Amino acid sequence: MNKDLKDKIYILDTTLRDGAQKADISFSVDDKIRLAEKFDDIGIDYIEVGFPASNPKEMEVFEKLKGKKFEYSKIVAFGMTRYKNVKVEDDSNIKQLIESGADAVCIVGKSSELQVLKVIETTLENNLDMIATSIKYLKKYFPEVMFDAEHFFDGFYENPDYAIETLKVALEAGADYLCLCDTNGGMLPHNVIEILDRVNKKIRATIGVHFHNDSGCAVANSIIAVTRGIKMVHGTINGYGERCGNADLCQVIPNLELKLNKKCLKEGNLQHITSLSRFVSETANQIANPGQPFVGRNAFTHKGGMHVSGVSKLSTAFEHVPPEAVGNTRQILISELSGKKSVILRAKEFGINLEDDLEKVSEILNRVQNLEHKGYQFEAADGSFELLVREVTGTKKKFFKLESFRVLDEKKEDGRMLSEATVKVQINGDRIIETAEGNGPVNALDKALRKAILSRYPVLSKITLTDFKVRVLDEKKGTAAVVRVLIESSDGVKSWGTIGVSENIIEASWEALEDSIIYGLMNVGENTGENTGENTGENKDSGNKNSG
Amino acid sequence: MNKDLKDKIYILDTTLRDGAQKADISFSVDDKIRLAEKFDDIGIDYIEVGFPASNPKEMEVFEKLKGKKFEYSKIVAFGMTRYKNVKVEDDSNIKQLIESGADAVCIVGKSSELQVLKVIETTLENNLDMIATSIKYLKKYFPEVMFDAEHFFDGFYENPDYAIETLKVALEAGADYLCLCDTNGGMLPHNVIEILDRVNKKIRATIGVHFHNDSGCAVANSIIAVTRGIKMVHGTINGYGERCGNADLCQVIPNLELKLNKKCLKEGNLQHITSLSRFVSETANQIANPGQPFVGRNAFTHKGGMHVSGVSKLSTAFEHVPPEAVGNTRQILISELSGKKSVILRAKEFGINLEDDLEKVSEILNRVQNLEHKGYQFEAADGSFELLVREVTGTKKKFFKLESFRVLDEKKEDGRMLSEATVKVQINGDRIIETAEGNGPVNALDKALRKAILSRYPVLSKITLTDFKVRVLDEKKGTAAVVRVLIESSDGVKSWGTIGVSENIIEASWEALEDSIIYGLMNVGENTGENTGENTGENKDSGNKNSG
Repeated sequence: MNKDLKDKIYILDTTLRDGAQKADISFSVDDKIRLAEKFDDIGIDYIEVGFPASNPKEMEVFEKLKGKKFEYSKIVAFGMTRYKNVKVEDDSNIKQLIESGADAVCIVGKSSELQVLKVIETTLENNLDMIATSIKYLKKYFPEVMFDAEHFFDGFYENPDYAIETLKVALEAGADYLCLCDTNGGMLPHNVIEILDRVNKKIRATIGVHFHNDSGCAVANSIIAVTRGIKMVHGTINGYGERCGNADLCQVIPNLELKLNKKCLKEGNLQHITSLSRFVSETANQIANPGQPFVGRNAFTHKGGMHVSGVSKLSTAFEHVPPEAVGNTRQILISELSGKKSVILRAKEFGINLEDDLEKVSEILNRVQNLEHKGYQFEAADGSFELLVREVTGTKKKFFKLESFRVLDEKKEDGRMLSEATVKVQINGDRIIETAEGNGPVNALDKALRKAILSRYPVLSKITLTDFKVRVLDEKKGTAAVVRVLIESSDGVKSWGTIGVSENIIEASWEALEDSIIYGLMNVGENTGENTGENTGENKDSGNKNSG
Repeated sequence: MNKDLKDKIYILDTTLRDGAQKADISFSVDDKIRLAEKFDDIGIDYIEVGFPASNPKEMEVFEKLKGKKFEYSKIVAFGMTRYKNVKVEDDSNIKQLIESGADAVCIVGKSSELQVLKVIETTLENNLDMIATSIKYLKKYFPEVMFDAEHFFDGFYENPDYAIETLKVALEAGADYLCLCDTNGGMLPHNVIEILDRVNKKIRATIGVHFHNDSGCAVANSIIAVTRGIKMVHGTINGYGERCGNADLCQVIPNLELKLNKKCLKEGNLQHITSLSRFVSETANQIANPGQPFVGRNAFTHKGGMHVSGVSKLSTAFEHVPPEAVGNTRQILISELSGKKSVILRAKEFGINLEDDLEKVSEILNRVQNLEHKGYQFEAADGSFELLVREVTGTKKKFFKLESFRVLDEKKEDGRMLSEATVKVQINGDRIIETAEGNGPVNALDKALRKAILSRYPVLSKITLTDFKVRVLDEKKGTAAVVRVLIESSDGVKSWGTIGVSENIIEASWEALEDSIIYGLMNVGENTGENTGENTGENKDSGNKNSG
């Protein structure tokens, strides 16, 4: 038990408050409730939900939370010390904190002489009084009050005695945690070591840290602070926050738990952090960073040939932690630099054993290299790679045969833009002709193809295109350059990437689209018996409904 | 001079080698040459261009570089120590290094006992011999040989004596730099301090570090290493690299120069690092991270009301470094003043004085903000920005009026792909209809438009499209997402960028194309008298040569 507390690091998640300061994030009230519930599930100690005085929506979140009982987490309301000329009991921001019904409050005050004199424009003495009176007053209402020492690190370099004085005043007034903030985010690890070592000599308290990432060191600074004895870390999921963001808890927590043997989350929950990260990025409508340490899609992805052969011999050889510890997975990519071993490993993932057929492996590698020379890139196109392997090994199924297609884009006299596509395909000898409109040529083509084959392969309705990327290769050739199209598709559970390359963007898009659909039909409908290509149905030749 | 050397930190950029290991990056030979030229411009000490033995494309880069003389940078070829059972003079990888014609070589060898025994599968003694013989041999051909001590940090924790022994052997064989690699990227700053302090006691050499970012600490580790006396840092622009990437030089270099007073780039070039970062992300077709420290679009963007008022009182209050030091800009959301000033400045550049017409300036700003909200981006589209200003100020000329256009893309039964466009335009009341084929819909449209108007505006023949870029915004909407097209055009002397945004890629392309041509006609033909829109000519209504 004693050992338990010794290794405990308290986590305060401020995704819902500081994280929401990111330029393009805006959480609804319901988003905040749903996210707070997730943070409770994984076992975050403190959830800083918002700043009640900042706008009415914030207060609404606290109102809704009053009805809920969280199993693990404590709800924290954020506020400021009293205004410089107002008595604490009359301060509206303090009143709203009290009304919030939160389990604890965190109030921010200035620890920098420069900030007090030039930004707040008050005296150093009054600033100390603002801190003391606010904390003392709030302690009557809340069992736990945290003091956020804003600009503490910068302030310490300006005037260390005054910075320490703000902490002492807060501690004497009853603050339970003193949280040292690097508000401008400019600190480097050696600054943090120096300052914390000096603070530790001057004051005995439960100290926390709150780092912004402007120097790119927020994660490192949080960790180094723990090695200097601090007990609480503030941060956000995925590092969201103003400017360059806050310390990313998805990186801080795994480092602390797996490498420093600290306890941060509720026991046994670290393996859920990858899924939490993705849930939060979905809710915040942010594109996930594939290279995000620990939880990113590529965090355990191996590309180089040398590395791949290393990983197959000894996985710790090229992985700093086991991916399953954080709920992530290992991925092996195919690329120009990689060799036979990675082809064999990848094929095994989708159930094809090539170990005893090195001739086929060579043929696959040759094809990949030729295609990559033309601009293909199979790293992001696992679906197209599987189809290539299946073609070489004779296990690819044909669901339809394209006869021809035609896409018409028109800019009308009235300025309207129209795109319309017609596809002609054959299924088991039947010709099917369908036409559809879309809000662009590729969208029209996608719709026409689906219209043509859906009745034969109803499982297609489960498959959606989730991502569409276009890259112009050799851009200097202007509009005559080669174009690479990447499509990502999903059936709601599994997702796959496919690729097309051509001088003609429509042809490249078709190629990626066709691969996406074939891959989907082969893998999604596996248990439905609908992907044998043997279904019959009436001839759907509906003619070309529109003329160009 | 002595002081100069004391503060010098040598930078090795491995964007073109290790950076290219990022899952979705694939540089062409020309990309690599163009990037190397940029690295020379900004003054990177060493550019690691590639691994000649890995594939023929890599050797092609070295062949092309043989003809170039770089002003500042040295070209480095990357390779491995000799293969375990091969004599160094017979090793094909070593031979190719020698043939590369590089200024220096960097060869990787193992410093971890575990890796030697389990991955390379040779004896500890032979591994030392592989390092020694390879370096000694290469020193006959190259003035500078670097030793990349792979898995040094992990290896040090397994067996410190052996790890140090590999360094000593390399040093005695003549290595000029010993580069300690955190190959798995799992080190934390306190590990780096501990290990470097122990290394420094055992060996005196010029030491470098090479960090991967799997623990999220690559930047911090590089910086803390410099505080422990190392003299070289390896990294990549924007932190590109396998898995979670390498140390981001766009963060490491500003931290070292601005905060530790070190010299990294050629004097006076730090202010170009933001533009370099953006050039590299465009070339690599990577979405730039707006929150990237120092160089990201939002790195100095202030959103919170408190912060904005703070910044306006005292900019250092909320900024760790001045944005102009790294060539970035402060952005204050909602603030108008800074925006107005830059509109006036930019309009002056093309000869429009707006100082006394603040109403027009506001209208321009409003339009820009609305358009940027829809996905436009005028930074790379100076041509479209000028046309917008000319529209508001009534100085835009009309050269032709589009009536309608139509593009047909067909995939024929025999597999051939055909694109054909018809445009209908009016010039001085005359209708002109022209059709052309192209190797894609946009190319066909470009050709048809030129065919329609060239005889009226012969100066058009001087204008070529030099660059064409497509970016899918909001990629998650699949083929129905909004698309941004950027076109760069040139008359051989001046070049200009134009932009179009639409859900329909054809419409977006048309918009950028039309702006490109109009801008060109306004600016290129200035002295020819051909851009007045008053020319007459016979009615070129040639009918629609093809039917859809």
